[in-house]
Amino acid sequence: MAEKILIEKIKQLLAENRAEELEELVGDLHPNDFSEIADELSPEQITEIFKHIKDQEKVVDYISELSTDLQTILLNALGKEQASEILKDMYTDDAADLLGEIAPEESRELLDLLPKEEAQEIEILMGYEENTAGSVMNSEFVALQEYFTAEEAIEHIREMSPDTEMIYYVYVLDSRTRLIGVLSLRDLIVADPHKRVSEIMEEDVISVLDTEDRETVARTISDYDLLAIPVINEKGKMVGIVTVDDIIDVLEEEVTEDIHKMVGSVKVHEDKLIKTSTLKIATARLPWLLVCMGGELISGMIMEHHAGLLEMVLALSFFIPVLMDMGGNVGTQSSTITVRGLATGELRMEEFLKIVWAETKVGIFIGAITGLLIFIVTCLWQKSLIMSIIVGLSLCITVVLANTFGTLLPLVFNYLKVDPAIASSPLITTIVDILGLLVYFGLGTFLFKHF
Amino acid sequence: MAEKILIEKIKQLLAENRAEELEELVGDLHPNDFSEIADELSPEQITEIFKHIKDQEKVVDYISELSTDLQTILLNALGKEQASEILKDMYTDDAADLLGEIAPEESRELLDLLPKEEAQEIEILMGYEENTAGSVMNSEFVALQEYFTAEEAIEHIREMSPDTEMIYYVYVLDSRTRLIGVLSLRDLIVADPHKRVSEIMEEDVISVLDTEDRETVARTISDYDLLAIPVINEKGKMVGIVTVDDIIDVLEEEVTEDIHKMVGSVKVHEDKLIKTSTLKIATARLPWLLVCMGGELISGMIMEHHAGLLEMVLALSFFIPVLMDMGGNVGTQSSTITVRGLATGELRMEEFLKIVWAETKVGIFIGAITGLLIFIVTCLWQKSLIMSIIVGLSLCITVVLANTFGTLLPLVFNYLKVDPAIASSPLITTIVDILGLLVYFGLGTFLFKHF
Repeated sequence: MAEKILIEKIKQLLAENRAEELEELVGDLHPNDFSEIADELSPEQITEIFKHIKDQEKVVDYISELSTDLQTILLNALGKEQASEILKDMYTDDAADLLGEIAPEESRELLDLLPKEEAQEIEILMGYEENTAGSVMNSEFVALQEYFTAEEAIEHIREMSPDTEMIYYVYVLDSRTRLIGVLSLRDLIVADPHKRVSEIMEEDVISVLDTEDRETVARTISDYDLLAIPVINEKGKMVGIVTVDDIIDVLEEEVTEDIHKMVGSVKVHEDKLIKTSTLKIATARLPWLLVCMGGELISGMIMEHHAGLLEMVLALSFFIPVLMDMGGNVGTQSSTITVRGLATGELRMEEFLKIVWAETKVGIFIGAITGLLIFIVTCLWQKSLIMSIIVGLSLCITVVLANTFGTLLPLVFNYLKVDPAIASSPLITTIVDILGLLVYFGLGTFLFKHF
Repeated sequence: MAEKILIEKIKQLLAENRAEELEELVGDLHPNDFSEIADELSPEQITEIFKHIKDQEKVVDYISELSTDLQTILLNALGKEQASEILKDMYTDDAADLLGEIAPEESRELLDLLPKEEAQEIEILMGYEENTAGSVMNSEFVALQEYFTAEEAIEHIREMSPDTEMIYYVYVLDSRTRLIGVLSLRDLIVADPHKRVSEIMEEDVISVLDTEDRETVARTISDYDLLAIPVINEKGKMVGIVTVDDIIDVLEEEVTEDIHKMVGSVKVHEDKLIKTSTLKIATARLPWLLVCMGGELISGMIMEHHAGLLEMVLALSFFIPVLMDMGGNVGTQSSTITVRGLATGELRMEEFLKIVWAETKVGIFIGAITGLLIFIVTCLWQKSLIMSIIVGLSLCITVVLANTFGTLLPLVFNYLKVDPAIASSPLITTIVDILGLLVYFGLGTFLFKHF
C-alpha cells in the first residue's frame, strides 16, 4: 500500500515538474525498491526521473536492477552518450548481459564509446556460452601480491577504493596472474600488520573453471558456504569471481526451470507470465501434451481390444478412472521427489539400487492399503467377488509399478546424462496408464475366463 | 572416486592406529569434504579420528557440518566434558539446533557445563519457534558505538579478533543496544581513518523481526543482495544476524517442501530418503491419495449413471483415458506453474484477474489444437461424425476448464491465506476428471438424443 502512495506521489511530481522534490523522494531508495516502483511507471517517466537524479552512480544502481527489456528501452531513450557512461559504471557482468540482449550493431556502437580496456572485458564476458560460470561472473575483484604485508595490503585496498561491494575476499596472484591464495578482509584486519600475505593466505583455494555449468558453481558456493568463488580459465589464470547474490538468483531460476520441466513445460517467460504471449506459453507446453495424447490413444486402443470383455461386464469400465488416476498420482509423487532429490544432491547415483528398493517398499505399502480399500468398496458397490479381486489386485500392482517406475526413470535418465526432469509427470502418467490398463484387462480376461 | 580412495586410506590408518599420518590426512580438510567422508564411516571411527586431531577448532568445524543425528551420537560418544567444550566453540545457532534435538535432561546437563552467558544465549535461541528468524539466526556479530573513528573501529575489531567469518557487516548500536546503523568492513577500510562511524554508517538498515517467518527473511536477503541481515526483537534491540549461507539452505529446503506438497506429499525425511522408514514416507503420501481415490470413485459413479449410453456406444469409453489424462496434465501444468510463480513473487495477487485471463487464453489455444486433433483422429478411428464432435468438443472444454481451474485454485487458496501448494496435482487432477466426465457425458447424451 505504501508503495502505491509513493507511486502516485511520483507521478504527480513528474506531471507538475517538481524536480527537487522528486530527487529527494527517489534519490535515496534501495535499487530493489526502485525497481518495484519502476514496474508501475512508463519508460518515459523513468527517463524523466533519471534526469533529475544528480548522482550518476545511483542511476547506474537503479538501472542494474531493472529487467533487460526495460534496460534496453531506457538506454535507447537516454541517448548514446549517457548510455555509454552508464555502461562504464555498471558491473561488467550486468553490462555484458545487457549488451547481449540488444542488436549486435547497437552493442558494437556502444562498446566503441567505452574505454578500450573496459570494452574488452565486457566483450570477453559476452563471449561465454550461456549458463557457464563465465557468463555469470564479473571481472571486478581485488588482487594482491604475496610479498605484501597485511598493512600494505590494507593500504593498497584503501588506495584502490574498489567500488565493488564484493571485496570480502581478496585474491593472491603470482606474476603470471595465476591464483595462488585467498584471504578475507577479516583475516587482513585481524592479522599482525607486519605479517606477509603469503603467511596469512589460505593456499587451498576452491575455484571453478570459466566453462563450468553455473549450476555446479552455485552448488559449490552453497556447499562450502562461500561468499564468492574465483573463476579461472584453462591456463589457471584468474579471470573473475561469481558472487553469492548472483548464485541465489541462479539457484532460484534453475529450480523454476526444473519445476516447469517436471510438468512437461519449458520456462519461456523471461520476465512475467502475464506479459508473455499466449502463443509462446502454449507452444512451450504443447509438445509433451501431444506426446501424451498419443500415448493415451494407445490406452483407448487397449480398451477397444478388450471391447468384448467390457460389453460383458460394463462395470469394469467404471473403475478405469480410479485406476488411472491413482497410478498417475503415485508415479508423479515418486518421480517428482526423485528428480528433486537428485537436484539437491540428497539422492546419489551410487545408491541407485537402495533408492529404487526404498521406493518399491513404499509402493507396496501404499498399493496394499489402497488395493484393500478399493476391494472393500467394490464388494459393497458391485457385489461381485471376482470384480473386487480384479479391481483391488490391479490397483495394488499399478501403484507398485507406478512408484517403482517413477523412481527408476529419472535415475536412468540421470545415468544416461539426460536431464532427469524429462521424466515429467505427463510422461510418467502416460506410461503408468498404459501399464495399468494392461494389468487390469489381463487380470480381468484371465479371471472371468477361469471362474 | 578420489573420495573412495581417501576413505579406504583413512579406514586403513585407523585399523593400524597410525595417528600422525591420520591427522595429516584428515586434519586439513574443508568441513564440507569431511562431512561427505563421515557419511561413509561409523560413529566409532569418527570419534577415533577426532581423538587424533589436536586442533579443537577444527573438530568443532567438522562436527558443525554433520547431520544432527550423527552429532548427537558423537557428543554422547565423546563424553560430557569434551561435548561441552565443543558446544562452547560452536556457533550459537548450530549449538541451539543440536541441543534442541536431544532429550531435555541431557541438553540441560550440557548447558549447565557451559559458561553462564553462553548457555543463556543458546537457551534464548532454543526458545524461538521453528521456522522463525530467531530460530535460524546466530548471536555472534560485531557491534560498534557511533562515536568510534574508523581507525578505532578497526582496532576494536582486531582486538576482538572475532572467530566468526561473518563480520563483513558491523552494526552500530546505541546505548540501549538498539540498532542505529550498519557499515561494511570495506567501508571502514576505505574511509578516512579519523572519520567517525556515525558519519560513515548507513542509517537505513534493512532488518527483520525475530518472530518473522524464515522464508520472508530469505526473500529479503535475496531481494536486497545482502550477505547478512540483522535481527531485532520487538523492543528494537538487536539480537542476532542471519547469514546468507544459512539462507541458501533455507531457500532450498522450502523449495523441496513446496515441490513435495505440489504432488500431495509431505517432506518427512529429515536426512536421507533411503534412511527414512517406509511407513513414514507412505503415511506422508497417503492422505491426498485417499482423498483423490474417493474423488475418482465419483467419476466411476458418473459413468455408472450413464451406463445406458455406454452400453449403446461402448466406444465412448475408449476416449475416457485421453480425456482424463489431458485434463489432469493441463491442470497440473497451470497449477504447478502458478504455485511456483506465487512462491518467487513473479505472480502477484494484485494481478489476479490478469493471471487467470492469461492462463484461460493459453487453455483456449491448447484446447482448440488438441480438440481439433482428437476430432480428426476420432473421425479416422471410429468413423462417426457425432462421436468425433463429442470427443473433440469435450476435450477442448476440459482443457480450458483444467487450465483455468489450475490457475484459479492456488490463487484463491493464497487469497484465503491457505498455502497455495495445497492445490496439488492430485487434487487438481481429481477435480478436473470429474468435470471432464460431466462435460463428456452431458454432451454425449445431448447429441446422441438429438442427432
